[in-house]
Amino acid sequence: MTERINLYEKVANHISRLIGEGTFSVGDRIPSVRKLHSDMKVSITTVMEAYRLLEDQGIIEAHPQSGYYVRPQFPKMISSPEVSKPDINPANVNVSTLVRMIMRDRSNPDIIQLGSLQPDPDLLPIDKLNLTLSAVVRRDRRKSSLYDELQGYKPLRVQIAKRLLSAGCAITPDELIITSGCAEAVMLSLIATCNPGDAIAIESPVFFNLLQLLEVFKAKAVEIPSHPNCGIIIEALRDAIEEHPIKACFVSPNFSTPLGSCMPDENKKLLVDLLSEHEIPLIEDDIYGDIYFSSERPVAAKSFDKKGLVLLCSSFSKTLAPGYRVGWVTPGRFKNRIELAKSVGNFATSTPPQMAIADFLANGGYDHHLRKIRRLYAQKISLMAQAIEKFFPEGTRVTNPNGGISLWVEFPKYVDSLKLYALAHKHGISFVPGPLFSAKGKYRNFIRLNAAYWSEKAEKALATIGYLAAEMKDN
Amino acid sequence: MTERINLYEKVANHISRLIGEGTFSVGDRIPSVRKLHSDMKVSITTVMEAYRLLEDQGIIEAHPQSGYYVRPQFPKMISSPEVSKPDINPANVNVSTLVRMIMRDRSNPDIIQLGSLQPDPDLLPIDKLNLTLSAVVRRDRRKSSLYDELQGYKPLRVQIAKRLLSAGCAITPDELIITSGCAEAVMLSLIATCNPGDAIAIESPVFFNLLQLLEVFKAKAVEIPSHPNCGIIIEALRDAIEEHPIKACFVSPNFSTPLGSCMPDENKKLLVDLLSEHEIPLIEDDIYGDIYFSSERPVAAKSFDKKGLVLLCSSFSKTLAPGYRVGWVTPGRFKNRIELAKSVGNFATSTPPQMAIADFLANGGYDHHLRKIRRLYAQKISLMAQAIEKFFPEGTRVTNPNGGISLWVEFPKYVDSLKLYALAHKHGISFVPGPLFSAKGKYRNFIRLNAAYWSEKAEKALATIGYLAAEMKDN
Repeated sequence: MTERINLYEKVANHISRLIGEGTFSVGDRIPSVRKLHSDMKVSITTVMEAYRLLEDQGIIEAHPQSGYYVRPQFPKMISSPEVSKPDINPANVNVSTLVRMIMRDRSNPDIIQLGSLQPDPDLLPIDKLNLTLSAVVRRDRRKSSLYDELQGYKPLRVQIAKRLLSAGCAITPDELIITSGCAEAVMLSLIATCNPGDAIAIESPVFFNLLQLLEVFKAKAVEIPSHPNCGIIIEALRDAIEEHPIKACFVSPNFSTPLGSCMPDENKKLLVDLLSEHEIPLIEDDIYGDIYFSSERPVAAKSFDKKGLVLLCSSFSKTLAPGYRVGWVTPGRFKNRIELAKSVGNFATSTPPQMAIADFLANGGYDHHLRKIRRLYAQKISLMAQAIEKFFPEGTRVTNPNGGISLWVEFPKYVDSLKLYALAHKHGISFVPGPLFSAKGKYRNFIRLNAAYWSEKAEKALATIGYLAAEMKDN
Repeated sequence: MTERINLYEKVANHISRLIGEGTFSVGDRIPSVRKLHSDMKVSITTVMEAYRLLEDQGIIEAHPQSGYYVRPQFPKMISSPEVSKPDINPANVNVSTLVRMIMRDRSNPDIIQLGSLQPDPDLLPIDKLNLTLSAVVRRDRRKSSLYDELQGYKPLRVQIAKRLLSAGCAITPDELIITSGCAEAVMLSLIATCNPGDAIAIESPVFFNLLQLLEVFKAKAVEIPSHPNCGIIIEALRDAIEEHPIKACFVSPNFSTPLGSCMPDENKKLLVDLLSEHEIPLIEDDIYGDIYFSSERPVAAKSFDKKGLVLLCSSFSKTLAPGYRVGWVTPGRFKNRIELAKSVGNFATSTPPQMAIADFLANGGYDHHLRKIRRLYAQKISLMAQAIEKFFPEGTRVTNPNGGISLWVEFPKYVDSLKLYALAHKHGISFVPGPLFSAKGKYRNFIRLNAAYWSEKAEKALATIGYLAAEMKDN
């Protein structure tokens, strides 16, 4: 018995070493149970126990009907930031001056892009999509130039409805409205559910575009503490609802940015139940839902919605083509209001990009594409986390996300991320300073990094950021 | 001397008869002075005097460096509606339920479309534009799929800036922001200049999408009387500004819909001066500015702007491709606020349609295309007005627009246009009832017709509408 235990541990150590030495990298499939059984001359039971051990250690993961894969590894000595502790009193929002700078960086080819969350252009199926675009406008020439239906191109809604099954949502095409990206979906949801001056509960930290949206529509932000792995703290939200007249709640349950947290299913259900009890609409941002690193797609909070109160917002901007500007929302019981807001905003979404994406989805290949980018983004995030460990000053913490494309870094207290941004910018490097993720300018010693643009150049940029941050210690 | 006078009148009568009999139709070029001089064996002076007489009678018009053309003719016995007399007290707006029905009609192929103002698909350069689209995404593959700049595709802004010279506006590409159609340009302008609850001065009647926009953003409408030919009455606007705290003013100086009025240049200047004096921003909708039937493009009110207070909004939706959703705004002194609103709404306009339109404009052919559609829309409007004269009950009045694609019809008082809409809808006909053009449900006996879809089918539909309207007399 003792010997068998030693044996499976030995097998596990062997595989672990191969991974450590780079024989198998993040996202690679390791040998099947049967193959290792035959290669290493050990029993199938032994291999299975070895693999279970490696799974428990978070080194590999099982993909159903596919095999075992190397999981993204995070430096062991760097821990995650703690649960956020925002000031939960409602606040007016003003982050725009800073955001304008970050957004300008986005289109500057001389800047190393670690700021705005663009996907890696090399991981977009640009040529295939453009070919599809050319084909569909020729095939359906009139349709392509005329106003589309207000709700959006029907064949695209059919495809999206099919895909939403994997997020646990049974939605009909008629329960979807196509939008100009996820941003418009969220904006329409806010307009449809709230009035100016209303208090909106949001995760904290939260991505700055949402804070800007609240600024433009004169809504007040109630920032709710959030856990770097499990997302918004339900108890804290419950307290906030009791204290403030919350009119809507905005959450990204799956791989929120900047935290990258993924709410456990039971928390998603608790969240929806709590809000439903108070008849508070939930605006759910699921834009990173398809970029998960574990074996299964996490469900959307929408899957627990019984009252039509959850407005699920997403898009193809992180996986297919940000420039096409195609997203969607499930308006639930707010359909008339969402349609009205869409109608005054632009009548309908641009037709040709919708047609191209509908065709691309219908012809297959999207799932294959998603499998590829999941593996590669997991690698990029892992490599970036390793570089942070290597280059950033002692005491730095970083998140350990299981999806998405961003990392949230907590520097030691002496680092002022706004000053660090100004210094890094002189070196042609852009990232997003922490205070942009809070209505009250908190997270002074945090930054968000985009891992999608990971490259040798990005690695050097991280070394520079690390150097500049360390320099701040004695100033 | 007497004989020469008789001679040029004789020549003019001859040409007038040829036009009346259909030898020359609306938009056709009539023989040149030199040709008629040689054909009719009369002096050049005589021909020129004959043509001047026909010009004075509004039968022909001179196009510089091109010749004389037949002008759109309107039935002489039908007069225009009078200056509108709206109730100018601020009003909350709610027209959405009805509008939803009209908009649903838009995508119903079994409906004869005289409602929503879609351009005639046969007058759009669909194939050329789609070919351009296919070419540009191949040529500039990365650009086409990535987020565009917030301000919009630079080469497109260059083309628009060039074209705005013909509207009397010297605008640099940096003073433009590309939007998802004119509707978004107007929405962003409203968000950038007003707060919820503010009073906005608008023409009356005004197109219903604007009323919906005010409804969504909880603005109050102050309806200003407008002349069917000369547009908004400046004196009435002056009174309204003195009585109410007007925060912005919305006007379509060139071929507003439904009236089709075109403000004389001096009125445009008075309008801009009046608003500037009170520091009130003007949101100028110029979407029909390029569809003029006379010889020269009317200037934009923006051309008189000295303070950056005029936000000129327009698009390519009536001339090139509504489904592409590409428009623009000159934000003037509100640039930061417009950019912020654009950023939270969708980050940027869809890239491929912008690239296609930029290329189409750069490669020429747009002016040629515009000349063609101007002539054809003038014909369609003229033919529709004639059918109205023929089929609609006695006492009906109709506008006599010099541009655009819509007609505004005033029935005798006994006609209720909402009931008429319901009856016509049963016959598969859609138009827009008058009350949709007023925040207070005025214009009960008016309807707006889209002349762009003029066809034999549309003519029969008008006969049906006329019959149904006349039937109302004794009910």
